[in-house]
Order: sequence, then C-alpha cells, then structure tokens
Amino acid sequence: MRDAYHEELDGISHDLVEMTRLVRSAMARATTALLDADARLAEEVISGDKAVNKIESEIEQTVFDLMARQQPVAGDLRTLITSLRMAADLERMGDLAAHIAKTARRRHPESCIPAELHSTILEMGQVAERMVAKAGSVIASQDVAMGLELETDDDAMDKLHRRLFKVLLSPSWKHGVEKAVDITLAGRYFERFSDHAVHVAGDVVYLVTGQRPEEIIEEFN
Amino acid sequence: MRDAYHEELDGISHDLVEMTRLVRSAMARATTALLDADARLAEEVISGDKAVNKIESEIEQTVFDLMARQQPVAGDLRTLITSLRMAADLERMGDLAAHIAKTARRRHPESCIPAELHSTILEMGQVAERMVAKAGSVIASQDVAMGLELETDDDAMDKLHRRLFKVLLSPSWKHGVEKAVDITLAGRYFERFSDHAVHVAGDVVYLVTGQRPEEIIEEFN
Repeated sequence: MRDAYHEELDGISHDLVEMTRLVRSAMARATTALLDADARLAEEVISGDKAVNKIESEIEQTVFDLMARQQPVAGDLRTLITSLRMAADLERMGDLAAHIAKTARRRHPESCIPAELHSTILEMGQVAERMVAKAGSVIASQDVAMGLELETDDDAMDKLHRRLFKVLLSPSWKHGVEKAVDITLAGRYFERFSDHAVHVAGDVVYLVTGQRPEEIIEEFN
Repeated sequence: MRDAYHEELDGISHDLVEMTRLVRSAMARATTALLDADARLAEEVISGDKAVNKIESEIEQTVFDLMARQQPVAGDLRTLITSLRMAADLERMGDLAAHIAKTARRRHPESCIPAELHSTILEMGQVAERMVAKAGSVIASQDVAMGLELETDDDAMDKLHRRLFKVLLSPSWKHGVEKAVDITLAGRYFERFSDHAVHVAGDVVYLVTGQRPEEIIEEFN
C-alpha cells in the first residue's frame, strides 16, 4: 500500500499531466485561431490560460507543504524540485499559446497567415501539439525512449521554422512588413513552445536515468 | 560567527551576483555588436555564455548537496529553491544576450539597425543593463524598495518596444522585410531579458517580505 506522502507525489504527477492536456488544447485552438482569423477562439485561449496558471500555483503550494512537513530525502527532493521546474515550463507553454492567440486577435478580421504559409503553420501547430502530448505521456509513464523522441520532434520544428523564414525572406514575399512581423513572432512562439516540451521530457529522463537526454543520445552515436 | 551552512548560502548569493555581472557585460557588448555590426564582439558574447551556464550548474550542484546533507527547514528550503529559479532566469538572460549577438553576426558586415532605430535600440540595451545591474544589487542587499523599482524599469522597456514596432510598421519603413524580421526578434530578446530581470528581483522581494511585488504595489495604490 502507498503511504500518504507518495500519494501526494502521484497527485503532483497527475496535475502535471493535466497541465499538458490544457496546454495541448490551448495550442491546437491557438493555431486554428491564427490560421482562420477566429477571434472568438483566440479569446477562449487567452482567458483559458488562467486555469493553467492555477494548477502551477497549486503544484508549487503542494511541493512546499510536502517539503516542510516531510523533510524528504535526496531522491524525493530532486523529484519535487524537478516538478516545480516542469510546472514552470508548462505554465510558460500556456503563455506562448496565448501569445499566438493574441497575434490572431490583433489582426482580426484579417488573417495573419498568407496561403503559401498555411501548411507550414499548420504543421508547426501539429508538431507542437504532438510534443506536449508526448511530454504528458512521458510524465505519466516515465518512458525514457519516448522522452528521447522529443529531441527528434524538436528537429522537425526547427526545420519548419527555417522553412518559414525562407518564405518570409524570399524576394517573392508580397505581404509586407506587418505580416512578416506577426509571422516572425508567431514562429518564435511555436519554437519556444517546443523547446519547453523538450525540457519537460528531458527532466523526466534525468529523474529516471540520472543522465540528460543529450548525454544518452551521444552515447548511442 | 556564521556556520558552514550559512557560509554556503552566502556563497550561492555571491555566485548569483556574479552571474548578473557576466550577463550585464554580455548584454552591453551584444547591444554594441548589434548597433556597430561588430562581429568580433558578437563572437565574444556568444562564446562567453558558457561561463554563465557553468555558474548555473555549480549553483544547482551546491543546492542539491546542501539539501541532501543538511535537511534544511522550510525557510532555508525556500531560499535554496528560489536560488535555483534565479539562476535559471539569469542563465536564460545570458542566452538572450547571445541571441542578440547572433543576430548581429548573421548580417555582418551589414548592420541590422537603420539610423532611425539606433537610439531606440541603444536605450533598450541601456535599460536592460540597468535592470540586471539592479537585480544584482537587490540580491546582494535584499533591498525591497530597489526590487520594486524593476517594475517601473520594465514599463520603460515596454514603451521602447512599442516605439520599435511603431517605426517598423510605419508606412515610411524603407528597409525591407529582412531587417524588420531581425529587429522584431532582437526587440523580443530585449523584452524577455527584462522580464527575467523582473522575476529575479521579484523572487528576492518575495523571500524577504512573503509577498510578490505586484501585491505590494497594489497595496500602495
């Protein structure tokens, strides 16, 4: 039977997975809002970010309570501190989804995204969603192999980001500076979102193996 | 006389202040590199970021060692965990200074910054420098009033950031999309840099008073 202390640890892990679900949904809707110039959906994402922030505060509170009451030993202490870091990453991912939604709202009823970038942005949103979903599974399952996959997903995001800049900076760009600025910022938000997903999965890998993903990947190459 | 434990706590605080010094110098040089298209200076900032990362790792190691050996009580625990968070913010500020330097390097020997934005970027660099210097003083002195000043400095940064966009998006912008993209990203890096400085100072304010800066400021309004 598990004791109350380890039940609270499980509760934190459950809350982190819940954060990944909320953030994934926010990112999916923010990408749609950006592509379809959907102001209502954008508003929903922006106001919904409070729920993500709330779970982060609750995790913080639980961690400090546990630490004060239980004087956890080194291993559990590391788990608790890492939970704070993962919660902070996920909170930031919620902010970034809201930033994308704000970009959509700012130009409404116009769309920020010209036709030739539609599929690139759509794919960036899909990769971002896949990454946060995977990060959630990694937290729940402690699956190291899946945790390492995030590194490859991040390469896919970087490739899409480069493709975005290639279109923006080509001599045939006809959509002016304002759209270029919007897309530069949106691209940056997608890229940072996926960086944070990599951190979250990397933290789990480190807790399970004692090594950072890049160290493990280096050993296999 | 202070015991070994509290000497180690002082050591962490000293390392954090050292990080603010390195990051301030990186930001000063990155801004100059951007304005003067100085590739040598840009390289220096980029390679110098390793020193900032190294101190962050050392702080992390010290904190985990202290926690494992000393089983610190609630107050000291909070100080230690907050130190990790401040170190992470400062590490990120080093990255952002390096990103500005990389923007300068990418366009060398051309300058990214047209004459009409020179003074705005210069001021953004100065505000950023002032903020990280202040954050360092706040860590060293635990001066709450100075910690609260960072909020006002951040408003100054936001104002400069808006001025930047106004110029970029004005119909008289003549410098094309590539420069607009560079400046959009650089502006974002300055803004994020100052956000992190606000966090660092806010963490000190919270450790000293038990309240976040925004709660204190609200009470006075």
